[in-house]
Amino acid sequence: MLKFDEEKQIASVQGALALRGRIEAIVDDICRAGFKNICWLGIGGTYASCLQAEVHMKERSTLEFFVENAAEYLTTGNRRVGEGTVVVISSVTGSTIEMVDAVKKAQADGARVLGFIDVETTELAKRMDWEIAYPANEQLKFFMVADRLMFRHGEFPEYEEYYAQLDAHLAVDLAEVEKAADAFGLAFAQKHHDDKLHYFVGAGNQYGSTYSYAMCYWEEQHWIRTKSIHSSEFFHGMLEIVDRDTPVTVFVGEDSQRPLSERVVRFLPRVCANYTVIDSRDYALPGIDERFRGNLSHLVTHAVTQRIDAHIEAINCHPMEIRRYYRRLDY
Amino acid sequence: MLKFDEEKQIASVQGALALRGRIEAIVDDICRAGFKNICWLGIGGTYASCLQAEVHMKERSTLEFFVENAAEYLTTGNRRVGEGTVVVISSVTGSTIEMVDAVKKAQADGARVLGFIDVETTELAKRMDWEIAYPANEQLKFFMVADRLMFRHGEFPEYEEYYAQLDAHLAVDLAEVEKAADAFGLAFAQKHHDDKLHYFVGAGNQYGSTYSYAMCYWEEQHWIRTKSIHSSEFFHGMLEIVDRDTPVTVFVGEDSQRPLSERVVRFLPRVCANYTVIDSRDYALPGIDERFRGNLSHLVTHAVTQRIDAHIEAINCHPMEIRRYYRRLDY
Repeated sequence: MLKFDEEKQIASVQGALALRGRIEAIVDDICRAGFKNICWLGIGGTYASCLQAEVHMKERSTLEFFVENAAEYLTTGNRRVGEGTVVVISSVTGSTIEMVDAVKKAQADGARVLGFIDVETTELAKRMDWEIAYPANEQLKFFMVADRLMFRHGEFPEYEEYYAQLDAHLAVDLAEVEKAADAFGLAFAQKHHDDKLHYFVGAGNQYGSTYSYAMCYWEEQHWIRTKSIHSSEFFHGMLEIVDRDTPVTVFVGEDSQRPLSERVVRFLPRVCANYTVIDSRDYALPGIDERFRGNLSHLVTHAVTQRIDAHIEAINCHPMEIRRYYRRLDY
Repeated sequence: MLKFDEEKQIASVQGALALRGRIEAIVDDICRAGFKNICWLGIGGTYASCLQAEVHMKERSTLEFFVENAAEYLTTGNRRVGEGTVVVISSVTGSTIEMVDAVKKAQADGARVLGFIDVETTELAKRMDWEIAYPANEQLKFFMVADRLMFRHGEFPEYEEYYAQLDAHLAVDLAEVEKAADAFGLAFAQKHHDDKLHYFVGAGNQYGSTYSYAMCYWEEQHWIRTKSIHSSEFFHGMLEIVDRDTPVTVFVGEDSQRPLSERVVRFLPRVCANYTVIDSRDYALPGIDERFRGNLSHLVTHAVTQRIDAHIEAINCHPMEIRRYYRRLDY
C-alpha cells in the first residue's frame, strides 16, 4: 500500500495515547490550582484543531472555554485572556511567527500556556509553562486535555472506560480503516485529482477537519482549489451554485451534529451527480463502544483522506512536501 | 445610477439610527436587571452579522459574549445559554426554520431574546421578549445594541459623541460612497461577472461581511462560485493556489485587524495580476471622526459592493431575487 507503514503508524498513535499520564498530571495540577477559562489558540491547521476541541467540549461542558486565532488575538486582543487563563497550543515546528508572538502576548497578559511543541529545542517550546514534545496526533492530544478537564469537572464520567478502549484498540483500528479505505481512496483520487474546484462540507468535529483538509492538504499540498463550508451553512448560499457536475464531498461524523450533514447528503442527489459521502460509520472500530464513536469520527475520516492524499500525490506527480510560497517568500 | 434611490436609501439608514431610543430603553432595562452573558445567534447571513458584532465587542469589552450558529445550537447545544442569557437575533422574514427552533430552545433553556424581526406579524416576532421591526440595516442594529451594552459597562465612553456624528452624517455619507464607487463597481463587474471562481479575503468587522458577500450575494444571488477566507488564514494554505490569473478581492477595513489585510495586499502583487483591493479608507465620511471610522468600515465597503452587484446583475441578466433551490425545494 502506497505511503503506508503500518507498524510506524500504529506506534505513532499508541505513543500519543501513552502521553496521557503526563497530560493527566498537568491537567490535574491546573484543576487543583484553579483556573478562570481555557483558550484554545491556533492558526491555520492548528486553529482548525482548536475548533474541533471546542465543539467536542461544547457537547458536554459548562467550563468557560473558547477558541482564538493567533493573528486575530495579536491585533484585536481578547480581554478574557489574562490571569487564570490556560492557553492550549500545538505546533509542529515551533517557529510559526503568529504563534510565537501570541504566546508572548498571552503570557504578558497573565495567562499560562500548555504546549505540544514537537521540536523541544525551539524558543517557543522553552516558553511553555507545560510542554509535551511528541510528533503528530494533534487532535488526540487536544482531546485528551479536553477530556481530562471535563472528567475533573464531573462532565466525562466514562473517562476511564473510554480511554481503556482507546489504549487497547484505537491505533490498530485506525490502521485497519486506512487499509479498508485504500481502494476508495484510489478511485476518488482518479476521479478528482484534476478538479478545478472541489467543495468540502462537514459539521461537528468534522468541521475543523473539513476546513483544514481543504486548506492544508488540497490547497497547500496538492495545489488544488477548494471551498469548505459548514453543513449548517451549506443551505444558506452555497447550495445555489451546485449543479450536476459540481464536485462536492460531505464528511459525515457520528457526533451531535451528524443530522446537519445527513441533511446535505439527502439533498445532494436531487441536484448533483458528482458528490461523494465519506461517513465514519462505514468503518468498523472493533473494541470501541458505539457511544464513543462520535468522539473519534474525525480520526476515522482522517484515516480515509490519508488514502486519497497518497493516491493524488502519485497521480499528479506533485510531492506533498513542496510549497510554492509558504516559508519560501517573506511576507 | 442603476438601482439606486438616493432618497429612499438615506431614509432607510436614518430610520435605523432613529431606533436608538428604543434600543437604549431595552438595553438599559437589561443592564439594570442584570444578565450573565450575551449570545449573538444567527445562521447564514445573520450568522455573519453576529461575527461582526463579536469582533467589534472583542476590541473593547470584558463582558461575556459569544456567537452561536442556530443549527449547531439545535444539535450540539450550548451550556452557557440559560438563565441570565440575552440572545440577540435578526431575521428579515421571521420564517427561517433554524432560527425559529433555536429561539424556542433558548427560551426553554431560560434565555430571553431581543429580536429585530422585520415582519412583526410572524410567530417568531411574537415570541420575542423584546421586538423591534424595521427593515434592513442589520449590522447597524446589532452594533447599536453592542455599543449601548458597552457604554453601560463603561467601555464605550465616546458613545454620545459617536452617535451624534452618525445621526448627523452617516446616512448621507454612505449614499455618497455609493455614488463615488459606481464607476469602480461597473469596471469590476465588467471584469469579473463571468469568473469561474472568485476569492474574497477580509479581517476584523470585514470578515463577516466578506463571508456573507461571497455566500449570500455571489453564490446565492449571482450564482457565481466563491471562496471567502480570513486574512489571517490566507497565509496558511490558500496562498498556494493563487497564481497570475486568480481573481482575488481583499476587503480592507480600518479596525484593529487592518494590518492582517494589509499583509495580504502587500503579498498579492508578487504572485497575482488579477487582484482588487477594496479599502474603506479610500472613501470620505465627512463629519465623522477618523477614530470612529474603524467601526463603520464594513458599511463603507458594503456601499461599494452594492454598486458591483447592481452592475453584475445587469450584465449577467440574472435578477438577484431568483433562487434555484433555496425555499423552492424541501430539504
